[in-house]
Amino acid sequence: MSVRITEIEEPNSEVLRLGLDAPLQLESGASIAPLQIAYQTYGTLNAAKSNAILICHALTGDQHVANEHPVTGKSGWWISMVGPGKPIDTARFFVICSNVIGGCMGSTGPASLRPESGEPYGTEFPVLTIGDMVRAQARLIDHLGIETLLAVVGGSMGGMQVLAWASLFPKRVFAAMPIASAAKHSAQNIAFHEVGRQAVMADPEWRRGRYRIEGTRPVKGLSVARMAAHITYLSEVALQRKFGRNFQDRDAPTFSFDADFQVESYLRHQGISFVERFDANSYLYLTRAMDYFDLAADNGGSLAAAFKGSATRFCLVSFTSDWLFPTSDSRQIVHALNAAGASVSFVEIESDKGHDAFLLEEPNLFATARGFLDAAARARGIAEGKV
Amino acid sequence: MSVRITEIEEPNSEVLRLGLDAPLQLESGASIAPLQIAYQTYGTLNAAKSNAILICHALTGDQHVANEHPVTGKSGWWISMVGPGKPIDTARFFVICSNVIGGCMGSTGPASLRPESGEPYGTEFPVLTIGDMVRAQARLIDHLGIETLLAVVGGSMGGMQVLAWASLFPKRVFAAMPIASAAKHSAQNIAFHEVGRQAVMADPEWRRGRYRIEGTRPVKGLSVARMAAHITYLSEVALQRKFGRNFQDRDAPTFSFDADFQVESYLRHQGISFVERFDANSYLYLTRAMDYFDLAADNGGSLAAAFKGSATRFCLVSFTSDWLFPTSDSRQIVHALNAAGASVSFVEIESDKGHDAFLLEEPNLFATARGFLDAAARARGIAEGKV
Repeated sequence: MSVRITEIEEPNSEVLRLGLDAPLQLESGASIAPLQIAYQTYGTLNAAKSNAILICHALTGDQHVANEHPVTGKSGWWISMVGPGKPIDTARFFVICSNVIGGCMGSTGPASLRPESGEPYGTEFPVLTIGDMVRAQARLIDHLGIETLLAVVGGSMGGMQVLAWASLFPKRVFAAMPIASAAKHSAQNIAFHEVGRQAVMADPEWRRGRYRIEGTRPVKGLSVARMAAHITYLSEVALQRKFGRNFQDRDAPTFSFDADFQVESYLRHQGISFVERFDANSYLYLTRAMDYFDLAADNGGSLAAAFKGSATRFCLVSFTSDWLFPTSDSRQIVHALNAAGASVSFVEIESDKGHDAFLLEEPNLFATARGFLDAAARARGIAEGKV
Repeated sequence: MSVRITEIEEPNSEVLRLGLDAPLQLESGASIAPLQIAYQTYGTLNAAKSNAILICHALTGDQHVANEHPVTGKSGWWISMVGPGKPIDTARFFVICSNVIGGCMGSTGPASLRPESGEPYGTEFPVLTIGDMVRAQARLIDHLGIETLLAVVGGSMGGMQVLAWASLFPKRVFAAMPIASAAKHSAQNIAFHEVGRQAVMADPEWRRGRYRIEGTRPVKGLSVARMAAHITYLSEVALQRKFGRNFQDRDAPTFSFDADFQVESYLRHQGISFVERFDANSYLYLTRAMDYFDLAADNGGSLAAAFKGSATRFCLVSFTSDWLFPTSDSRQIVHALNAAGASVSFVEIESDKGHDAFLLEEPNLFATARGFLDAAARARGIAEGKV
């Protein structure tokens, strides 16, 4: 537990600290001050400050895109995509990723200490929106002295942030790449999130969100939440191919409630390892922000209005077997962008790996990202192979 | 709670009691004695005893097919299908439905009292299979003096029992109608069940299954399990149409963890009402039995071998939007039946209501059932409109 708390207060990342004099106004009407934003950067910002790419992470991701993770010791979550010579080429681009506010890797969230009491916020932390996350990131981009990002890129909840960036700050986003995402969270997705939240809140160790104060940890509830969510990240085909009905370390059923099947053992492991690196209240806040996301509703009921007059160039990506954020969700955004007269390309990638595909070795995703970012860089006058 | 216990020990149903001298041998090697089977019947058995239809219920169903439920006070779960003049016509057929063993509505299950100790079995109850449920039902059919059932009909876990009946007792099944079912449980379905079980077992009130002895009730865990499962019973389209992103009794988000969205409120209600009528340990045992179901594995790896030489006439039904037991599962059974040279018809019904469709007003399902049972009755010499 000590490692987790260290990451919350004094993370192994750069931090931007905004004081009481610079509160972040939230859509709910509340505000947060002071505010800490933890972030990683890769590569070098050029003199024109024109080669910055902001990566927005997904629900359970963080700023550790392409470096060893300080808690798990594992590679960054997008190491296949981001690095020197990789599709998001850090030899050429200055890549930034910040932990979202509400998270638990060093940006201010429900586990952070309140300035007034010195106690963790818990559920006294204000409920956030995707737009709030993006406004916090904009503070960081200001701080880095960048006016316009070459690109904003992200998958899933990260894709929602990409869309919110393009809608809220169109002039600051030269190119936008939302992957496996949606302009609004579906009823089914809200339903799965609600199950996860109820699992956390059903755990008596949750203590109405005051577990850090009371010295408990709702690990069982959070683990169940993660298990349920994890199923939705995979496709039926992927589960079948990976596990089928194979037994785990045995030849026959044990006629018990042990993890007889490999898929059970795998899911239990996913649950257990997740709770070592994630804060239960953060899980509540971030799923809630996703549920609330509805870019059309924010724009008088018209998704096209969210992008009216946009000069940003968009590239959308979906995966055929993604049932959490199906292709129809991306297509809806493409239609709205077309109606708004925006520049948009759209690639549906054949994959049987489900929603998770955006995190995996997908050559077509890599080629799409490389081509799109290369074209954006050329359009912005950034020479090939140069910073 | 008193009502539930009454239903377990002295249900509002007919019961067959088998003594210590007639133990039920289980596939695990264990046995159960004494054994109680609670059942309902509708209509009249004819003199030839040729008009009996056995209905097998699904995971959370019970024997109360077409009468008021003694716990909830609601109509039976298949009141639209079963009754005088209905597709399963009780003016013509003698309809039987028994609570599965492992259940909690009067058939012996984990909440039943052990004869030795007078205490509930809890997790000392032996783990069951679908085949075990069917062998128990065969005892009831023996007791009723019926040699060959006109038909065995059921959906979901009920469909698994239909398949097991046809495989284990081919001569006792004149016609078989498995609806929205599968010959084996998929990796994804095992995964969802495992999440449900972990939710129950994570609840400290579960007390390692000894909650009835210790006077607690794992209602939160069971409620979360039900919520997760319930999502899988519906289609994305049905959720979208029914709830979309509509708010519940409000016009705007509350920026809280209240059930802002109708779909959240609906799911919470599903969870809360379920725990009033279902035993948590029964939920563990019945989901486990479904996970273990693999009729091909039971027959040397060949599903066709399960039906070799069968004279039973089969009618399979699937629904287009059912993603829990998709059409491909039914098609696999049809292929095996064809390979076994069995008589089989197969109807895929266009419906956007998901797995739940088999419980709902689906005119095509009603027409299919009526037509199939009518043809079976005629083939067995049961005159139209006569008992």
